[in-house]
Amino acid sequence: MSSTSSHVGPVVGVVGAGQLARMMQQAAIPLGIELRVLANTQDESAAKVIVDTRLGDYRDLAVLRDFAAGCDAVTFDHEHVPTEHIGALTDEGVQVHPGADALVHAQDKAEMRRRLTAFGAPCPAWRAVETVADVEAFAAENGWPVVLKAIRGGYDGRGVWVCDDRSEAAEVVATGIPLLAEAFVPFQRELAVLVARSPHGQGVSYPVVETVQENGICVEVLAPAPGLDPEDAAQAQRIALKIADELGVTGLLAVEMFETADGLVVNELAMRPHNSGHWTIEGARTSQFEQHLRAVLDLPLGSPSLTAPYVVMVNLLGGDDPAIFKRYEHVMAHDPGVKMHFYGKEVRPGRKIGHVTVLGTDLDDARARAKHAAVYLTTGEYT
Amino acid sequence: MSSTSSHVGPVVGVVGAGQLARMMQQAAIPLGIELRVLANTQDESAAKVIVDTRLGDYRDLAVLRDFAAGCDAVTFDHEHVPTEHIGALTDEGVQVHPGADALVHAQDKAEMRRRLTAFGAPCPAWRAVETVADVEAFAAENGWPVVLKAIRGGYDGRGVWVCDDRSEAAEVVATGIPLLAEAFVPFQRELAVLVARSPHGQGVSYPVVETVQENGICVEVLAPAPGLDPEDAAQAQRIALKIADELGVTGLLAVEMFETADGLVVNELAMRPHNSGHWTIEGARTSQFEQHLRAVLDLPLGSPSLTAPYVVMVNLLGGDDPAIFKRYEHVMAHDPGVKMHFYGKEVRPGRKIGHVTVLGTDLDDARARAKHAAVYLTTGEYT
Repeated sequence: MSSTSSHVGPVVGVVGAGQLARMMQQAAIPLGIELRVLANTQDESAAKVIVDTRLGDYRDLAVLRDFAAGCDAVTFDHEHVPTEHIGALTDEGVQVHPGADALVHAQDKAEMRRRLTAFGAPCPAWRAVETVADVEAFAAENGWPVVLKAIRGGYDGRGVWVCDDRSEAAEVVATGIPLLAEAFVPFQRELAVLVARSPHGQGVSYPVVETVQENGICVEVLAPAPGLDPEDAAQAQRIALKIADELGVTGLLAVEMFETADGLVVNELAMRPHNSGHWTIEGARTSQFEQHLRAVLDLPLGSPSLTAPYVVMVNLLGGDDPAIFKRYEHVMAHDPGVKMHFYGKEVRPGRKIGHVTVLGTDLDDARARAKHAAVYLTTGEYT
Repeated sequence: MSSTSSHVGPVVGVVGAGQLARMMQQAAIPLGIELRVLANTQDESAAKVIVDTRLGDYRDLAVLRDFAAGCDAVTFDHEHVPTEHIGALTDEGVQVHPGADALVHAQDKAEMRRRLTAFGAPCPAWRAVETVADVEAFAAENGWPVVLKAIRGGYDGRGVWVCDDRSEAAEVVATGIPLLAEAFVPFQRELAVLVARSPHGQGVSYPVVETVQENGICVEVLAPAPGLDPEDAAQAQRIALKIADELGVTGLLAVEMFETADGLVVNELAMRPHNSGHWTIEGARTSQFEQHLRAVLDLPLGSPSLTAPYVVMVNLLGGDDPAIFKRYEHVMAHDPGVKMHFYGKEVRPGRKIGHVTVLGTDLDDARARAKHAAVYLTTGEYT
């Protein structure tokens, strides 16, 4: 292993070369950790900033085995690597984090619900369904609307259908996609809890945040979640740490929750750095990317404490005009404190191409500043 | 120029691939700026983290010309590029920052003293000297000891000799190195002011810091300089901004000063990110590396404000044991808030291999935490 070498740091292999791997590189550089990335093409976000970029198909075990050789740990930019390959690598002695037994719960929503229900994490009513009759039976018990979710492969609102009646459900069932039915949760707002857990079992939770979604895509994150009852915040953190522990997660776990009149309900899990944690780059003493690297290398975890009373992150979704850079000048001149993040990705309408972060003492002011920067950068409109 | 391309950011070429270029990459990644680096070997600190690494000799104009082709701006990791080459590139339309007319004052200490004296910046008595008789004449006016400095090429205490008498001066003169004589300044402590100036003339100053030197090497930086009179702090910032303006500096300028019973005296200048500004990575809203990139691209400058009441940076100088990484575990477990920085350099005794930064509300506590981490990381001793 390279960590026994005298003058280089450990090598961490990251499967997938999107913006998460790119932002890991920002954290890896100061720690002297050498990142290696498995990309599809040399043009991908992380491939542009990581010297040791290898090209190959993450669905091919031979490719993964070759990629892992010489790595002190292997982790992921996305959750699509087949768990049987992860299990095979682990059996061969590779440190893969998260492991197959944990990651399956981020890949398979039915498996996730089964497990969470088993140890008492708060879930909506749910049932795997195959036919329209199954959905109708579920609705008879839990009422319409019924939320149908693709058991595998959904993200950013894709693979989720809120069905008001039988005919809408029938259309979804007709796709042939394996489905999970969930009771519609009348939530007040959406929260997210990001925790880290290391192989030796240390756990750390970041402050609970509020996430604002539009069309199923996260557009804004407020840290900490404004006005959240401290008891509820502690309960949310306990739930997330419990899930990480029960599932044996190593690395980061993001738990998306609904806040309802009756308490908290777990919505989704992600086992990697998460959009709801991008604010930590400037807003926490340890960014989620550094935390993930510490965890997968089984190093002690860093402080998750806030660096300002409020931190606001707004996603940049590509607009019609791809010329982002020419708009830096206004934003930088207008607000010397706004932090801009671009992922080096080609601008396409609706695509996540970056984010902005603003720290402040007044929440409304910080939100307005972040919004102004994001709108101007993506559209050129002065709000 | 690549900035007119639709989906990539600007390209900044950095001549030299040491730790300063490496830390620039941390700042370039989120801004979507593509760094290109001119290295001597692929093993250098920045070459390990910058994909577009070119190998070549920075003293060769043809190499520089080829390197600069396609860059939106060219800047430096060190101050050794011949100013005639910089002038030639500028004449050919390359945006080089700092420019030759400014940089000469960082390369040539006699030129620096001449210019600073001309516009009234506070300097010690000084004179270019060639013979022992010249030194004796200078001492007759200003007293012993006399500080002899190599006019070109010194750094980290090298090229500086404090001579108590004629015979010590004679030894230095005998080396044949072109020399500057300066009156010895009985200082109370050393301060540094880091400012940025952009081509369109915007200037920003970071808070004044105290630097602690051992054997001519900076070992610790305290931000802000504790107990500094606000009037003196403002005066120090005015002096540094004035120097940047008078010399036409573009990019960063670090001004090292002595605090004396009679006021401030300018000691040295550096025109690049500087060791006295490494604390800004976590300790200021805009790091010196981001600030430098903004300045050389003529973008508006970022906020230099502190992120905590006190920030302490301690350099890591290589010890006898090169196995730094095995000591991460203790430091991370002992203090989840300490920020470690390694430059990916082979450990050699006395070599700057990294630094640690601690933020806090109590200066003594922050100093103790940073010291503990630095001593343990470099020696394995628990203090």
